[in-house]
Amino acid sequence: MPYKSTKGGVCAPKGFVASTAACGIKSSKAKRADLALLWSEEPCVSAGVFTTNRVKAAPVKVTQAHLRHRELRAIVANSGNANACTGVKGIEDARAMADGVAKPLGLTRREVGICSTGVIGLPLPMERIAPGLATLAGDLSRRNGGAVADAILTSDTCRKEIAVTVDLGGHSYRIGACAKGAGMICPSMATMLCFVTTDANITKDCLQRSLLDVTEASFNRICIDGDMSTNDTVLVLANGAAGGKRITRGSKECRRFRDALEYVLLKLAKSIVRDGERVTKFVTLDVKGAGTYLDAKKVAEAVAKSALVKSSWNGNDPNWGRIIHAVGYSRARIREELIDISYDGKPACTGGELADTPIKDLRAVAAKEEFKVTINLHLGKAEYTLYTSDISPEYIDFNRSEYAYWKNR
Amino acid sequence: MPYKSTKGGVCAPKGFVASTAACGIKSSKAKRADLALLWSEEPCVSAGVFTTNRVKAAPVKVTQAHLRHRELRAIVANSGNANACTGVKGIEDARAMADGVAKPLGLTRREVGICSTGVIGLPLPMERIAPGLATLAGDLSRRNGGAVADAILTSDTCRKEIAVTVDLGGHSYRIGACAKGAGMICPSMATMLCFVTTDANITKDCLQRSLLDVTEASFNRICIDGDMSTNDTVLVLANGAAGGKRITRGSKECRRFRDALEYVLLKLAKSIVRDGERVTKFVTLDVKGAGTYLDAKKVAEAVAKSALVKSSWNGNDPNWGRIIHAVGYSRARIREELIDISYDGKPACTGGELADTPIKDLRAVAAKEEFKVTINLHLGKAEYTLYTSDISPEYIDFNRSEYAYWKNR
Repeated sequence: MPYKSTKGGVCAPKGFVASTAACGIKSSKAKRADLALLWSEEPCVSAGVFTTNRVKAAPVKVTQAHLRHRELRAIVANSGNANACTGVKGIEDARAMADGVAKPLGLTRREVGICSTGVIGLPLPMERIAPGLATLAGDLSRRNGGAVADAILTSDTCRKEIAVTVDLGGHSYRIGACAKGAGMICPSMATMLCFVTTDANITKDCLQRSLLDVTEASFNRICIDGDMSTNDTVLVLANGAAGGKRITRGSKECRRFRDALEYVLLKLAKSIVRDGERVTKFVTLDVKGAGTYLDAKKVAEAVAKSALVKSSWNGNDPNWGRIIHAVGYSRARIREELIDISYDGKPACTGGELADTPIKDLRAVAAKEEFKVTINLHLGKAEYTLYTSDISPEYIDFNRSEYAYWKNR
Repeated sequence: MPYKSTKGGVCAPKGFVASTAACGIKSSKAKRADLALLWSEEPCVSAGVFTTNRVKAAPVKVTQAHLRHRELRAIVANSGNANACTGVKGIEDARAMADGVAKPLGLTRREVGICSTGVIGLPLPMERIAPGLATLAGDLSRRNGGAVADAILTSDTCRKEIAVTVDLGGHSYRIGACAKGAGMICPSMATMLCFVTTDANITKDCLQRSLLDVTEASFNRICIDGDMSTNDTVLVLANGAAGGKRITRGSKECRRFRDALEYVLLKLAKSIVRDGERVTKFVTLDVKGAGTYLDAKKVAEAVAKSALVKSSWNGNDPNWGRIIHAVGYSRARIREELIDISYDGKPACTGGELADTPIKDLRAVAAKEEFKVTINLHLGKAEYTLYTSDISPEYIDFNRSEYAYWKNR
């Protein structure tokens, strides 16, 4: 491990405090926390990346507008309802969530980022959210990093948080983060949220650039086809509380910050795949030897989203025929007779034909919980890596109905 | 029904005869026919459309070459093995299949089309196929149209054939066809085969043009993303045995032939969706009001291939949130606040928000075996229709392993 792990999640960096509340949005019975507030005691620089879906949830639209005008210093989030496709009322509700925490904290509304995740198309139950909002500012504590990580979960089965210390010789700063995974195996298809905090003393320029870079190499690598949900959001707040010389773009320290951020976000991205709904396999898909980067990406995405490939993995079946078939329709430039496919380095297909590895050896790899599939096109030097999973009958069964939510109407 | 139905499938048109054999390719135990021959007693004009997958099975490559040089007069097909990703031996085997029937029929090899369907990546068991091939020419009969339709099936649960009579006032011709569906819900992802025969007296030009046109409006409308398997093939043989004035391109009769062919192929295409593996719903997806045809198609394909949308249909859940979410990432031009979505005409979403139809009414539609989802973008006049299905836990379970095949190694 290249970085020293530390405790506290998003509250590990100096000056960040958090609180949560249970409002009955996720479920009216169980009193699970479903509202969270994260606040920096110091002013921050901030950056965000958002869904590219052309249908954007109200909190995404509002937060994007806030970020254009001001630096965020707080984030308020709810789970259980996405506040998406909710029209003018949705915008008003998102603003009301920001107002609800801004006033007691002495912030303007535009210093608050808003995130929602859950079912699409139903208005937020503001009558249940308002009482929770009123308690958040009073409950802020450094001990609540984990509570925030829990409050944003929906169908996730485990908390996803991490915090590391980055040493700069003599002085150090911390990066903390939490995330929620997707209703779907691929977070691109459901809501993925990630909040990152740091006490590094960094310029907005360096922060924003690093975030864009790193998102491409982490969360976008678990996006099956680059599609995102209506709500996907990654927000970073940097309050500079660790002091030290300011990290500026292009410096060695900026590269070091970028690398540490990549480490943190890639860990979270992989944990989202591992906790995909009813997932039983974690598959690293390495495409090599492509003519172009885009071709490598096309191949990886076609294979990773093929229901037939994913079904065979679920059955411990090292079926390379389905893989090469997906390679063929990926629209990447390929030559069938050059393609090699291997499972954990064991050839399954050589030069577009059956390799002579005994099938039992390949099945032994495919039976593991974690393995790597390498596809070499032997056409060039471009590469692409994706982290993906199988698809199980239980996944479909789990997603057959959101009727439990709809009943609330 | 605009055309008079008739019996006999591909042998309904005059001058077509067929035979089948059981070679133990599909299964070494059950003696199901898995080899078929279709032959026209008269010379033919012929046309074909093939997979656009860049990984093409050997029989596709060989048949494409044959069609470039000669008119096909016979088709030989096997099920149980796709003869794909089989290198030079695959090409030799495909040619050997053609040779095996060409000699006894007095044809050249290039007058024979070859089709294979089944598992990818294993060589054809020629030692088992050769004895079957030797019997085919001797068993030809007009009564074997249905037997051919059965011999090409793999995971299909029912025969797919049709024959119609087209009256031209005073004289008539027939069009017969059979097809096999996909290992997958969407035939684009597995092998789809279709053989069409007609005794119409038609020019190659009119035949080829009609086939291209009609494929776009039938089999390509059940293609989820325009991707095709390594083996997809539609072949048409027209022997002119019905006599009458030759049908030439651009004539009224050519349009009439095209319409009749569309009727036949659309019936078969829909029957492939209905017989998709473990499918419980047949959904007609109508996209209206798109700015361009391509946008309408993008929207339809994004929705039709969303595992979340398909899962909700499986659960009788009229979940429009998942539909609008797929519309948003389709990359089509949209305006969220203009989008209407309805189930059998009942509004589920109006202007991008929840419509006021009672949820029980929408659930009643989604609970039916067959319903229509209409998405109106209200941006223009372009439209697109796709025929699609749900996805079930049983589908994934069914596709978890092709190990039964691999055991044969």
